[in-house]
Amino acid sequence: MKSAQFPNPIYLVNPKYTGEDLLGYKFYDSVSSIPDETPVDLAIIAVPAQITPSIIEEIGKKGVPFAHMFSSGFSELDSEFDKKGKKLEEELVRVASKYGIRILGPNCMGVIAPKSRLTFLMSMKAIQKANAENKENDSVNLEGLEKLGELTDAGQVAFISQSGGIAFAHGMLSQSLGYSFSKVVSLGNQIDLDLIDFLQYFKDDPETKIIAMYIENIKRDGNEFVRLLIETTAKKPVIIWKGGIFQTGHQAVMSHTGGLAGNYKIWESMARQTGVILVNNFLELTDMVQTCLTYPIPQTLGTAVLSMSGGTAVESTDEVERNGLIMPLLSQELTQKINQFIPEINSNLKNPLEFGGKNSMEHTIKIIEMLGEEPQFSSIIMASSPEYLVFGRGNSLDDYIKGISNALPPNSGKLLMCVSSGMNMFEQGIKMNLEFRSRSLSNGFVAYRSTAAAAKSCYRWWKYGKYLEKRKFTS
Amino acid sequence: MKSAQFPNPIYLVNPKYTGEDLLGYKFYDSVSSIPDETPVDLAIIAVPAQITPSIIEEIGKKGVPFAHMFSSGFSELDSEFDKKGKKLEEELVRVASKYGIRILGPNCMGVIAPKSRLTFLMSMKAIQKANAENKENDSVNLEGLEKLGELTDAGQVAFISQSGGIAFAHGMLSQSLGYSFSKVVSLGNQIDLDLIDFLQYFKDDPETKIIAMYIENIKRDGNEFVRLLIETTAKKPVIIWKGGIFQTGHQAVMSHTGGLAGNYKIWESMARQTGVILVNNFLELTDMVQTCLTYPIPQTLGTAVLSMSGGTAVESTDEVERNGLIMPLLSQELTQKINQFIPEINSNLKNPLEFGGKNSMEHTIKIIEMLGEEPQFSSIIMASSPEYLVFGRGNSLDDYIKGISNALPPNSGKLLMCVSSGMNMFEQGIKMNLEFRSRSLSNGFVAYRSTAAAAKSCYRWWKYGKYLEKRKFTS
Repeated sequence: MKSAQFPNPIYLVNPKYTGEDLLGYKFYDSVSSIPDETPVDLAIIAVPAQITPSIIEEIGKKGVPFAHMFSSGFSELDSEFDKKGKKLEEELVRVASKYGIRILGPNCMGVIAPKSRLTFLMSMKAIQKANAENKENDSVNLEGLEKLGELTDAGQVAFISQSGGIAFAHGMLSQSLGYSFSKVVSLGNQIDLDLIDFLQYFKDDPETKIIAMYIENIKRDGNEFVRLLIETTAKKPVIIWKGGIFQTGHQAVMSHTGGLAGNYKIWESMARQTGVILVNNFLELTDMVQTCLTYPIPQTLGTAVLSMSGGTAVESTDEVERNGLIMPLLSQELTQKINQFIPEINSNLKNPLEFGGKNSMEHTIKIIEMLGEEPQFSSIIMASSPEYLVFGRGNSLDDYIKGISNALPPNSGKLLMCVSSGMNMFEQGIKMNLEFRSRSLSNGFVAYRSTAAAAKSCYRWWKYGKYLEKRKFTS
Repeated sequence: MKSAQFPNPIYLVNPKYTGEDLLGYKFYDSVSSIPDETPVDLAIIAVPAQITPSIIEEIGKKGVPFAHMFSSGFSELDSEFDKKGKKLEEELVRVASKYGIRILGPNCMGVIAPKSRLTFLMSMKAIQKANAENKENDSVNLEGLEKLGELTDAGQVAFISQSGGIAFAHGMLSQSLGYSFSKVVSLGNQIDLDLIDFLQYFKDDPETKIIAMYIENIKRDGNEFVRLLIETTAKKPVIIWKGGIFQTGHQAVMSHTGGLAGNYKIWESMARQTGVILVNNFLELTDMVQTCLTYPIPQTLGTAVLSMSGGTAVESTDEVERNGLIMPLLSQELTQKINQFIPEINSNLKNPLEFGGKNSMEHTIKIIEMLGEEPQFSSIIMASSPEYLVFGRGNSLDDYIKGISNALPPNSGKLLMCVSSGMNMFEQGIKMNLEFRSRSLSNGFVAYRSTAAAAKSCYRWWKYGKYLEKRKFTS
């Protein structure tokens, strides 16, 4: 929070260090000795599980309305024969309700709220510096970091996660994918505030354009959840990654956040009913967030695929069609136009379009422009990574990004989806892929890891559009 | 070939440059003027398609027994209404057979034979230098490169590819994945030497331990292919990636190497019948090659999964079970042993094993050793990338690699599969992942991109074992 430049007072409470100071913040011996001049909005509790009820009592007396309970060691450790954790949680709820305290957790990472500069992440730059100095993050001197407040850039994505690790990983990865959050919530054991409370909030949050969730289980009645989802998807897309699909996964879920996962078929039919975009893993979730943030909903499944080699063309086509898109042919007129500047040998002017190793960056950009005018394509997939058109051809990545970012008119309604596999194993190629990814969204395109990822995301986005359309006609 | 230090004479033929010299090699005005002192073994032909028959005539008169035809512009450009390319190919075969010349191609990249230092790739170092100097590869001064002959390191993998681009990509990627080839063949249009000729050769090639193929279509009778595969899989694993599965993919295949792809169901039943390991794309092929090269065939599907966070544990479990492995529980004894040195809070001692952020590198290695002694596990998947145990904990990657590489006894028959996602978007993290991957095979483990990739490869390897076992009983 210091690295995020949290602007309000932070009070540290630990009787062992009373009077001492850490990073400029003073330690108090108890909650009651915190000065009264500023009301305390939030308590972050990180003490052993056994003494948490007494801490809740303390903050209740102080009048603190919210507690984020980082502490773990509750129902997530219970077995069939031992429900100690569950009992402790019930005790917590009892004490909290006496004072009207709302609890987030326990066993969770808390909240990221960039506008308030409340966070549980260090900025990427701070961590890079720590890595460079081979130090723990918390022992790094933060002075001199250029963009300390980097993580406090507010974005349009709300992320609700039942896993603190995944909330953390998403917070980190999003920085290199080029998007940021309105808010992130790590739910933990949900003994009080739960998934549905936050979904309700994000539904009406004007700062949130897209809601993404990692869910292991639902604590409340499923029908309430479904009703709320139906209201929410009418206003903004909702992406759900459901963890713990398989039998052992259930076990893992049980010890992770103390609940039991439901049958996946139920989730699939829920998604059909509510328009929720269901994804299978973390990277599919980030793909989908980027897709919803960047593109209009595709009007059709028709896509044109461009590739720099015949093998990639065949592979891409299989991956595109495996994931539900279709590949109409180019018009006769366009084929003739392209033939005027592309030599026929080793270039295939059907769909996929394949240009051997000989096509230039300028020609590729020109062809993307031309494809954008063909009505049978709602999307265009550039299946070869940027380095193929940049390295060794005297081109700069900058020119390539500018070129493709201007290739389709902003109001075309079409999606230019790029693949940036990072499969180039040279350091330079990887750096180029990283830069390409981090600059993608701000230039109006997504850089996907694979053609499969691009096609899958496009198909799911189209399906959400179909859901909305059907709904318009039936309601 | 210069960068690979090809040891024998190379004669350049092009009447335009007669008497001039390139990279130290002399130009001749025709094949007939090449001096007779050394017999010429191979002609590499890269002239326009129309004049190729006359060139074959010329090399026939010279007595050259083999031609690699790089030239394209043959049947791969034919349409339903125009079979010019096919006719030209027939003419080539007619002329070649007059002189007993065997042809590879046309429309292909040729052969890599590391022991003979015959190659169509530059070494990684040469290309890195070219990239650094922002030059075309062929204008780079090759002096001063330390390991010029890098690509000529002979390995144990034979790769037959119907796509030159994929042969090239595989040659490049293998260098950073830590394996090399006995031979690589790019097939092209297969007007003479074909897939079956090379498969026949590799079956009995003592330098080849594993055969991998990228296939778009079969030119000869399918039964011949099946018979040969059955003979081959008895001696060594055969991995096939079949491109052009879907309808448009068929189209792409047609223009790529001038053939029509078969129905995929036929390929699947062929795989069941022959023990061929079928994969779906390029990266699955490289995963499988690494798996076959590195590990014994797993005895059972039982696997133990280790993870550094609860979310990753749930995700990994879903991916492991989705791909056919099973996750038995740990024994009571082992659980108790581990409990002696791992604090119970935030660590789940079922399977998957999850240690929060607090487990040390030493403990992880110790736990891998202990898991290796449990009979219910044939494989162990370390689902978290190496940087989680190395960065910020004062550990070195070197110690980590040494630790895990010694964790299982060499004759244990068990697989330690590591995940190195490269999802860490810091330059340092990526460098660490690259180094981890490139050093993996030589240290007895594979570094997979994802848990799914590890599980899928392990399952396929097990299935090949089952095939061999069944065969032993039925023959």
